[in-house]
Order: sequence, then C-alpha cells, then structure tokens
Amino acid sequence: MTPAAVERAREGRLLASELQDTWQILSPEERLEGLRFLPHAEAEDLLLGLPARDQSDLILAMSPGERRSWMRLLPPDDAADVIQAAPDTEREGLLALLDEPTRKEVAALLAYAEDEAGGLMNPRYARLRPDMSVDEAITYLRRQARERLETIYYVYVLDAEQRLLGVVSFRELFSASPEKKVRDIMRTDVLTAPENLDQEALSRLFAETDFLAIPIVDSERHVKGIVTVDDIVDVVQEEATEDIQKIGGMEALDAPYLESGFWSMVKKRAGWLAILFVGEMFTATAMGYFENEIARAVVLALFVPLIISSGGNSGSQASTLVVRALALGEVRLRDWWRVVRREIGVGVALGAILASIGLARILTWQALFGVYGQHYVLIALTVATSLIGVVTWGTVAGSMLPMLLRRSGLDPASASAPFVATLVDVSGLVIYFSVASLLLRGTLL
Amino acid sequence: MTPAAVERAREGRLLASELQDTWQILSPEERLEGLRFLPHAEAEDLLLGLPARDQSDLILAMSPGERRSWMRLLPPDDAADVIQAAPDTEREGLLALLDEPTRKEVAALLAYAEDEAGGLMNPRYARLRPDMSVDEAITYLRRQARERLETIYYVYVLDAEQRLLGVVSFRELFSASPEKKVRDIMRTDVLTAPENLDQEALSRLFAETDFLAIPIVDSERHVKGIVTVDDIVDVVQEEATEDIQKIGGMEALDAPYLESGFWSMVKKRAGWLAILFVGEMFTATAMGYFENEIARAVVLALFVPLIISSGGNSGSQASTLVVRALALGEVRLRDWWRVVRREIGVGVALGAILASIGLARILTWQALFGVYGQHYVLIALTVATSLIGVVTWGTVAGSMLPMLLRRSGLDPASASAPFVATLVDVSGLVIYFSVASLLLRGTLL
Repeated sequence: MTPAAVERAREGRLLASELQDTWQILSPEERLEGLRFLPHAEAEDLLLGLPARDQSDLILAMSPGERRSWMRLLPPDDAADVIQAAPDTEREGLLALLDEPTRKEVAALLAYAEDEAGGLMNPRYARLRPDMSVDEAITYLRRQARERLETIYYVYVLDAEQRLLGVVSFRELFSASPEKKVRDIMRTDVLTAPENLDQEALSRLFAETDFLAIPIVDSERHVKGIVTVDDIVDVVQEEATEDIQKIGGMEALDAPYLESGFWSMVKKRAGWLAILFVGEMFTATAMGYFENEIARAVVLALFVPLIISSGGNSGSQASTLVVRALALGEVRLRDWWRVVRREIGVGVALGAILASIGLARILTWQALFGVYGQHYVLIALTVATSLIGVVTWGTVAGSMLPMLLRRSGLDPASASAPFVATLVDVSGLVIYFSVASLLLRGTLL
Repeated sequence: MTPAAVERAREGRLLASELQDTWQILSPEERLEGLRFLPHAEAEDLLLGLPARDQSDLILAMSPGERRSWMRLLPPDDAADVIQAAPDTEREGLLALLDEPTRKEVAALLAYAEDEAGGLMNPRYARLRPDMSVDEAITYLRRQARERLETIYYVYVLDAEQRLLGVVSFRELFSASPEKKVRDIMRTDVLTAPENLDQEALSRLFAETDFLAIPIVDSERHVKGIVTVDDIVDVVQEEATEDIQKIGGMEALDAPYLESGFWSMVKKRAGWLAILFVGEMFTATAMGYFENEIARAVVLALFVPLIISSGGNSGSQASTLVVRALALGEVRLRDWWRVVRREIGVGVALGAILASIGLARILTWQALFGVYGQHYVLIALTVATSLIGVVTWGTVAGSMLPMLLRRSGLDPASASAPFVATLVDVSGLVIYFSVASLLLRGTLL
C-alpha cells in the first residue's frame, strides 16, 4: 500500500480500494453511489481501469449530465468499446454525447468487428514528417503531447499522403544529436498489422516481438491507428478464458462468473450438455447391441466405466494440448502428420502403463477374493488389450479432432474434454466388446 | 509485409521471416546456422524476440566468443531468464560472461523465484530527484536515455535514501512548463508491488490498471526495479497454458508441444492418467457391489455410461468455470456459499433438461422397438431421477473442488475435467443403483 493510501486509511477514507474489493457483488446503482463518494481523480482512475462492460453499465446508470462528462473522459478506443457493450437502443445516444471530431473517430472504430485489430486501435498517435530536424521534431511532439494521444513513445513518420515511411522511438529521437533529420534516425522496416487481423493473431505478434505498440495500416500503408500492448494483456486474458470455458465443454460466458445471470448461465451450459447427452445415448445403443454378452458374463459390465473413462481421459489430455498449441501457433495444420505419429507412440505407451495396472489389479483381486471366476486370466487379458486399444484411439482422436475443426473453419477449442470423452466412450465400448468377443468366445461367451 | 521486406524478397534474401516460419522444426544447430546467415541487426531482433528457453539453447550452441557478445546484448532481466533456463552446470559460465555491474544485477535477480515479481523485473529504470526543474530533468533524462534503460516512459522520483517519492510519466514531464519542479508535477500515489508478489497476481494488477510499468519495492519502499507490461503478456500466456494443460488432466509441459521430448511427454501425462485410473477402479468395485441387480436386470447396465458421463460433463463445466474465475480473481474463497447456491440451482435445471431428453428417448424407443419390456415406465423414471441427482451432484462437486484445493494451498487448476469426471463417475454409479433399488424393488429387482 502506498503511504498516501495508509494516510487515507488512518483517516477512515480508504474508499477506492474498499470499493474495488466489493465491486463484484455490487449492483450498478451501488457502484455508482460508491463512485460518487470518491475524490474525482480516484473515481476517474477506477472507472478507466474497469472492463468495458462495467463502464457501460455504470455510465448508463448515470444522470444525462454525468454521462456526458464521463463519456468525454474516455479515449476513442475505450469509448468505442463502451458503446459496443451497451444495449442496441442506447448506442446512438452514447455516441451523440461525444464532441464532433471524437464522434467521427469512434464511429469509424465501431465499423470494425470487436475481435479485429481495427476494433482495438486508437486513432490518435504521434506523427512526424521525415525532413524535420531532431530538435524541430521534439518541439513538435511537445505540442502533440498536450493533446490526448494514446502514446508518444513510438512516433510514426508519414509522407505527404499520410503513408507510413518509418518509425522512431521517442527514446531514439531523444538521444540523437539535435541537428540530424528524422529521416536519418527512423527505422524503415516497420512491423505493421492489417486492419482486419484477428486479435488472437495480433496478440501473438506482440508476444513474439516485445513492441509496446504496433501500427495498423490499410492496403496502401495509410496508418489507421495504433494498438498498444496494454490493451493486448486484456485480449490475451479474454481469449484464454474463452478457450478454457470451451475446453470445459460449454459456450464462452460474456461476463464474469458471479455477474452472469442464472438463466444465461444455464443456457450457455445446457446446449453443449444436451448435445453431449444425445451423443452419449449411442453408448446405450452400443451396449444394447452387446446385451446378450453382458447377460452371459455380467463381469464384463463391471469394467465398462473403467475402460471408457480411460479413453476419455487420454483423449482430453491430447485435445487440450493440441487446442492450446494451435492457439499459440506452436503447431500448425501442416504439422498434422508429426502430431499423429507422436500421439500414436504416446497413446501406446500410456495404454501399456494403464494395462499393466489393470492386469495387476485383476490378478491381485482374484488371488485375494476370487471374484472373477475360473476364466480370470482371459478377463484380465481382455481388459488389458482393450485398454491399449482404447487409450491409443482416444489419444489419436483427441489430437486430430481440434485440427479437423480448424481445417473446417471451426474453433478448435470446441474439441472440449467432454466432447472428446463422449466420442471415445461410444467407440471405446465397441473396441471393448469386440476384444471380449474375440478372446472369450467359447469360454465365457 | 513492409516495403523493405518486399525488396529483400525480390532479391531472394527474405531470411528472417523464412527462418521464423521454420523455427519450430529446426535443431539448435540449424537455428544457429540460420542466424549466422542473417544481417546482424535482424539476427539481434530475432534472438531478442525468442522465449528464454530458445535463447538459452542457442547461446549454449555458440562458440565462446559469440556467446559473450550475445549474452552482453541481453538486458539484465532477460539475461537472468536465459541463465535460469540453462542446465545447472552451465549457469556459472554464462553469468561470468557478463560485465561486472551487469553480473551483480543479474545475480541479484537470480535470487528471486522465477514466478515472483522480483524475477520479472529490470533493475535499470529512469530516476530523478524531486527538486530538479522540468528542464533540468529532461536534460538529465536525455543522458540516462543513452544508457540501456528498460524504459524512460515512467520516471521514478527518489529521495536521498533511494526511497520512492513519486512517479512522473515522461509525457507529463514533457508537456509541463520548463521552470516547474519535478516535485510539483509528480504523482505521489504510486501503485507498487512487493518483490515476492506472485506473477499471476502481478499480471492481474496490470490487467486492472492499464499501466505500462509497475515499480517493485521492498518493505522500506526502496525501488528494486520495474516490471513492464510487455513481459506481462508472456506471463499471461504462460499461466493460461499451464492452467489449460492442468484442466486437460495432465502436468503442465515445460516446452512447446512439438519441442517436448517423447518420454517427458509420456511422463507428464502418465502420472495423472494412472491416478485417475486407480480412482476409476472404484467404479468396478461399485458395480461389483450391484452385480446381482445387473444380472437380474441387464437393461440397467445399458444406461451406466450415459448417466455417469452426464455427471462428469456437468462437473467439468462447473470446475472449469470456477478454476478460471479463481485465476482471474472474479471469485474468491469467501464467495463459496454464493457459488454453491447458484450451482445447486443450475445443476437442478441442467439435470431436469437432460432428464426430459432421456425420458423422451426411452419412451420413444419403447413405442418404436419395444426394447425395454413391460416395466419401461419404471426404467424411464429411474433414469430420469438419477440424471437429476447425478448432474446436480456433479455440478456442485465440480464447483467446490477447485475451492477446496485452493483452501488447502494447492493449485485449483488441478481440479481438471477428468479428475472431476472420475470422482463423479464413482458416486454417480452409487446414486444410479440406489435409485434403481428404490424404484424397481419388487418389479425388475
């Protein structure tokens, strides 16, 4: 805690952090009330640090006068996010609160999809002409710095048609000798991103390069705006949350857990659960097909959950690994054959490990309690062989499914652990009972 | 692509990006060879953008002379990461390559755990005295900017004992009137983080505040270094990857998928798989306990996979949601009662939805094929009732397990989808056969 905060705490006014601690469980009205209690500068900091959805709820709960001054406080990219987070009917009204030039900028940003580079960028960036001297450039930037630019730390050098010629970091400008031209110290090999680049790809670009900002350009290298790394932290968190929720077998939520409504939560979860349930019904069909075998050897039924869940678990591992590796760009579609080869090997190794545990268990239980009858060796072999087959199949299916989804233009993260498990459950039963038919024909069956 | 890159491509020298495209599948030796083909500036950019592990492998593959100049190229925080990523036996040697002052800084950084704030910070930051005028400050910074500082964009104001008094952004300094004192324009309410703060908590701090850098201080407010947001992007990605892999039911890998060795991959996956397998063996025990019921009514066995997997799937959803919400700080331990209440409601709703689908399926199949015999209504009721019970139990168990793990000081992400599924499989069987005993006693059983 800062000394100033300790000071405030002593005086019983530690409101900003108190408010932040209880934020999640407050209603929009209570939040607004809390905000009004804060000194203005602290209220500003708090509001500016909130997710767009919360900002939007707060602003809509305000009186018209307050709304206007808070909307005008936001930089254009944040204002666009707030408007996008508001209900359709409120958007026009919020946009109208902005001053004329900002309104134009925000309207242009709203034309981009929320998850495109264009939707993340700030149109206010620092710019220079190539023929300025370093001293002129610094004076010129000093004037620009008083306007509300997103950053002055990267300065973009544009030609007369506003096309990107180069970039100079403020630091380079600052440590260069004053009489040099901007042209002499700028880098011309600028990393840029196109307007419609997916935000996930953009965040990979940031992760790979360690730049603080990347300019967004159109096909003729006109700079449309810049995206800064602090916005990317939020994107990375969001994308990871969406992927994790999909891997868990549900639709991604739009809001934090405790803020999601009961029925919207049920809806996001029921869809996939019902689809999985219908898929899993094929297990009843498959087992119905082997009903006579089960009636003759009830002992076979005992191992059904064990065997199919092992396939499901190894499949979950493989699909989760591949989903994440695809998202990070560590694995690409063209690597599929390397992935299959490796997963077949891993699957057989894992299957063999589980098979030996299973074998040991059945033989031990037989020796201790004699529960599996005279054909216990055959039963043990059936279980062990099935395990190798089911685990290998689960591993291969789990690793290929995300790639097939990506190949079909769908989200690989939909290859969730439960989805793969369901797929493998049905085929695992078929493998198990087929092995049983082969090995036990003439003895138990 | 930039014009310069197009130019190089025309001349057949598009090496940097070609090299980057094939990077994943090259051996350290091939990478080094590729790097030597590049113009020096491009090779530097490429190396600086790599993960610490890759940098370390590359540097260790170099000749002693090359090693030295590349190690000295790295800022202290990156040098510390590279040394941490190297095998134990090489660390001393790498450290010895640095110049004296850097070696001291890096040795100090190496004392922090890799996942603490202290392990991420750079000890070189821009600093000022409170009584300098704005003009003096700018001149002084101009001198500091020529040294290799992590950033000059936030400047920290220190007293004579090197304790933090305030912060001024370079931009504020730059747009202030030249004769003002630094003291007059600095903010004293600085957000700081302690040295041993967990990097996950630190990344949340960045996500909440949109700062580009946060100073790390000891208990007496001495600034030890700063952490910048571009390092946090990597942390956020890494933490999300670890969580995702744990949610998938395995240990987190230390390296990208295609770079992990075969046996290290098997090891990371076999451990959890074997534990789950042993856990899942209790399903065989549970089913053995109901062996007589199954023998009398084989039809009961047909629905076993359907019912237990529904519990597992709803449990996966709940645990995944809560794991992520805990990681993001959206839910805290003290919210447990709100979570339980909500999940009981959601579980009953989801269970009821699946129960009606199950009911419809059994009644339809009976009408069409007559497969379930005279007691089909009782069977349908058994399945439907069990589904509500199992899904509700799965949901509650899945949501509470991550909280229990956090409460016991363990990683909530270990409450993986497969782990929850296994737990719910065993208890689901008990619920199913108990309901069956109750409803079918005297008819089928």
